[in-house]
Formats: sequence, structure tokens, C-alpha cells
Amino acid sequence: MNELHFAPGACSFVPHVALELVKTATGQDFTPRLVKLHKGEHQTPEYLALNPDGQVPLLVVDGRPLTQVVAICDWLDRCHPDAGILPSEPWARAQAMSAMAWMNSTVHPTFTHVFMPHKFAEGELSHAELRRFNAASYRGYLERIQSMIEKGSPWLFGERVGAVDAYALTLLRWGGMAKIDPASLPAYKAWVERLAETPAVAAALERERLPLHTYKPD
Amino acid sequence: MNELHFAPGACSFVPHVALELVKTATGQDFTPRLVKLHKGEHQTPEYLALNPDGQVPLLVVDGRPLTQVVAICDWLDRCHPDAGILPSEPWARAQAMSAMAWMNSTVHPTFTHVFMPHKFAEGELSHAELRRFNAASYRGYLERIQSMIEKGSPWLFGERVGAVDAYALTLLRWGGMAKIDPASLPAYKAWVERLAETPAVAAALERERLPLHTYKPD
Repeated sequence: MNELHFAPGACSFVPHVALELVKTATGQDFTPRLVKLHKGEHQTPEYLALNPDGQVPLLVVDGRPLTQVVAICDWLDRCHPDAGILPSEPWARAQAMSAMAWMNSTVHPTFTHVFMPHKFAEGELSHAELRRFNAASYRGYLERIQSMIEKGSPWLFGERVGAVDAYALTLLRWGGMAKIDPASLPAYKAWVERLAETPAVAAALERERLPLHTYKPD
Repeated sequence: MNELHFAPGACSFVPHVALELVKTATGQDFTPRLVKLHKGEHQTPEYLALNPDGQVPLLVVDGRPLTQVVAICDWLDRCHPDAGILPSEPWARAQAMSAMAWMNSTVHPTFTHVFMPHKFAEGELSHAELRRFNAASYRGYLERIQSMIEKGSPWLFGERVGAVDAYALTLLRWGGMAKIDPASLPAYKAWVERLAETPAVAAALERERLPLHTYKPD
């Protein structure tokens, strides 16, 4: 059985939703494994043996580890092409992979500068500058996602909720932590609220006990 | 016909090699389009209409654009599974996708801090700190790739040269620009020199007119 190591609210939410989509489509369940980052459970020798990056997500398939959001989603989609993790039409699938890879290689690392600036520089002054500069870049990326949402219908790549939708939800949640008020991105916010009520997304949100919005005014 | 927009030495080298692999396996040629970054050709309205990020690589397939290294390589591999861009055995393919996604989302953005620190902070002091800190992180990642090379045989994922090998070559080249002497990573350096002599890689190196090593001592 697939075993997903996840941390609440992290990008592991994306394969979490993908596994819920597999469950809905095929009945095949999975074992969720909550990794408590604040207790350093991602830095134990046992965990590092499975993922030397010490990160979530980690999918364990018959005892064998697979890391990276994009690779896990691609793998699950190839195993279960009917689950709708990615579109089935080849060109639409390629565009969804492109959007997911962009979120993963560009949008996500930009947020990391806000959330974990110590990964990129030393010293409080540098950290404050990294937070400020990259929160502004991050907002630009969220605007771009909002324009993708305005073109997609009802979901980013058509009629079915997929992995890229789950990523877009995660990125707006993180925006709140970067002091970006989701109300300033109204189409995106309303779309995420509809997405949160779809079955696979609702199940993953509930298991991770996630509030949909994280923004708190100063 | 596939049309690849690339810049010499950029990560577009990875799909460039992939297209050479397709040519070898199927006889299907492609149109290379050199994008002169120093002349701002990636920032023209025409280019931005195809790729709003203003980046290479960009694959144009029957007039339709596809961006992102990972998505382009996945697409080409799905169109031409016999070209060896990714391994054919499903679990090995998933591991190769994971390595490619890791290079793309973690190793590559780390180098961007060294090469283009203005993307992450303002001010010369911040830029100097970003260069220093991330060059050290980058070296750690190259050491990890060297250990992957020592496990793979002869190439990272078996008997055939694939897209992940091309990425590893690119990342060592960039290391030279981050003042990392490839001679300090001897197994990696020797492997890249062997890789450079394989037909698809040699063809892409020649078209891009790339010297294999970029390191210059101070």
C-alpha cells in the first residue's frame, strides 16, 4: 500500500490530494504518516535514509521511497490514469505538468525565502531583506495564478480537480503567511473556497486539520 | 516539427540533448532557435507571448508553446518512449523524474542566487552575501550528484544517456562559474568528460559552442 509522509500545510498537500483522488477513482486506500517537523521527525536517521533532503512529501511504495511533488504526482498519474491527477489528453497533460513544474521550481522556492530565509543567507538584516523582496515577487506569482484560474473552467485544467489545483490552493494559503491578504485576490480566493468543498480536497484538508485561510492582519 | 528555443549553456541544454536523442532514435529532426539573452530576445513581446516568464527553454510544437525543463522532457519521453530520455522501466523512470525535479527545484535555484542575486534581493551587500552563502550550498549539492554518479553505471539511470545526465553536466559547468573547481570533484569531472563524448551530448555541445569547463582560478 502507498504510504505518504506529509506535514500539515506543506507542499505534501499536493500528493495528499492526489492519493485521495486515487482512492475515489479506484477504491485503493493509502497510509498517511504525519511527520512532526517541529519535533525534528524529518531529521532522524531513519527518515534521512528514505529522503536525504529531510523533506516532505515522501511516498513509500512497497518499501521503496519516492521524493519530489512532481515525480510523485507523475508516478501516481501513470499508475492510475483514470484518477484525474493530471489531464488524460496528452497536450493538456503536458501543460499541467508545466504549470506544476513552474509552481515547484519558481513559486515555491520564492516563498521559501519568506518562510525560511536562513536557507539562503546569514544574519537578521539579510533575512529581513529576503522576506521583504520575495514576498513582493510571490504576490506577482499569485496574481499570475489568479489569471490562470480566470482562464480555466471550472478547474485549472478542465472539468476535474487535479494535482495542480491542490498546489494552487497551497500557494494561496502560504500567501497569508507572507502577509498577502487573500481578499486582495478575490477571484483566486473564491475559487479556492469552492475547491475546498470538493471531496478529495475536503478530505485532505480535514486530515491535515488545515484552516483554509492563514492571513492575519498586523 | 519541434522547435526548441535555447540559450547556450542554460538549462535548455537538457531538452536540447533530449531532442538529439529523439533524432538518433527516430530520425525526427528539430529546429533549434538560438535566443540571444544579452540582446534581450527573451523579453520581446513576441517571446513573452509564448513564455510569460521570458525564459528558456521553450518548446514549440505545431505552433503551441510548452515551457519548463521537466514538462518538456516528460512530454518528449511520452511521445518517443524509445529515445531513452527517461528510463522505460516505470520505477526507474519515477526515480529519474525525482532526480530531475530535485535538480530543477533545488539545485538550479540555488545557483540562480550566485548568478542572478538581483532576483532575490536589492543592494550590493545582499548580493555578495547571497553569492557566498549559496555557492557553498551549491557545492554540497554537486557533491550529492557526484555520489549519485558513483552509484549509477555507466550513466545515472543505467545503460543509456538520458535527460538527467544532461542536467548533471550543466550543473557542473555552472559550478565553474560559482568558482567551484571541477578538479575538486574528480569522479564527477571524469564522468562529465566521458558523457561529453557520447553522440547526442556532443552534438548539443557543438551546436551551443560550449566549452565543457568554465572554471577560471582567481
